[in-house]
Amino acid sequence: MRYPEALEALIEQFRRYPGVGAKTAERYALHTLTTFTPEDLERFKAVLSALESDIKPCPVCGFLTTKGQCQLCSNQDRDQRKILVVEDVKDVVVIEKTHTYQGLYHVLGGVIAPSSGIGPDQLNLKPLLERLKNDAHEEVILATNLNDAGEITAKYIERLLQPTNITVSRIAYGLPAGGSISYADEITLLKALEGRKAYQK
Amino acid sequence: MRYPEALEALIEQFRRYPGVGAKTAERYALHTLTTFTPEDLERFKAVLSALESDIKPCPVCGFLTTKGQCQLCSNQDRDQRKILVVEDVKDVVVIEKTHTYQGLYHVLGGVIAPSSGIGPDQLNLKPLLERLKNDAHEEVILATNLNDAGEITAKYIERLLQPTNITVSRIAYGLPAGGSISYADEITLLKALEGRKAYQK
Repeated sequence: MRYPEALEALIEQFRRYPGVGAKTAERYALHTLTTFTPEDLERFKAVLSALESDIKPCPVCGFLTTKGQCQLCSNQDRDQRKILVVEDVKDVVVIEKTHTYQGLYHVLGGVIAPSSGIGPDQLNLKPLLERLKNDAHEEVILATNLNDAGEITAKYIERLLQPTNITVSRIAYGLPAGGSISYADEITLLKALEGRKAYQK
Repeated sequence: MRYPEALEALIEQFRRYPGVGAKTAERYALHTLTTFTPEDLERFKAVLSALESDIKPCPVCGFLTTKGQCQLCSNQDRDQRKILVVEDVKDVVVIEKTHTYQGLYHVLGGVIAPSSGIGPDQLNLKPLLERLKNDAHEEVILATNLNDAGEITAKYIERLLQPTNITVSRIAYGLPAGGSISYADEITLLKALEGRKAYQK
């Protein structure tokens, strides 16, 4: 005894999301079936299409943009001296919401994780080195998460930038160890930014 | 500072699902953006289209079908004497998975809930009365949930069927009071079916 094929297929789609098990996927699929009008379904499909066609990574920093440079890179009012390096686009949005930082960003798109086959070459690092040829940038603040993978990645980037004149700093342990940038509150994030320490050369 | 429009729109779509808040919707949307290939997005859209075009309520019992009568109504091996009345299509699937019942079903599509503007006329009741003109059906087992709305609906249907020769029974309180049919385990469901009591005429 199974649901009709189309419904089972939708349950499978929802199973792909993080933290969604069989029961939750079934609930989402039945909710779609019973509460979405044909117009709602059309809208959902249009949004999925737009996702593919309208959103690209910023060629400079790796954040999301609709075309050309992103809204952050193209904003000349931002402090060009600082580049904050984060793991994910989500981290940029979280930090922006706190209004504690006025500089630029660079999104790695992940962290070094040998067990998952992700090495430095899979990260958005070459464009970072390219950016640093611009003399306007004086400091790279490493804001990868404060867990093992984040620390390893930060250390790797610090070593990578040692030959340059750029000051490399690490966001402070104002956040709880093992914690995630995305869930930090404003005060904690502010303290972590203020307490950053320059690596000894 | 917001995500690009297409991503915000997708977050809004996910917000519509039960139990999905701002953080979860954002996680789902970012997961879609970062892990779905163009082929995955096409597949998701095709599934949403199929949902609309391929699934209809069974004209007899209200369960889901792709065309004509559903797989349960059209199966002549099932016990034609019994009709189990449930609130939702989900309940049918849950009960079928336990293999404790061999009869037919009838899906109400809800319960009487005056505060939500749902009265008997909004439920799938007329087709039930129509079905009972068939002499093969001898018993209607009311398996609405064991909470207030479910009890009120069961009582309403019992009164409605009093003038007929049909035996009307209520699934037993083998389930915990206030509980939901959908989350019952096999043993509890079996006991509840076995312990059903005929209403006194």
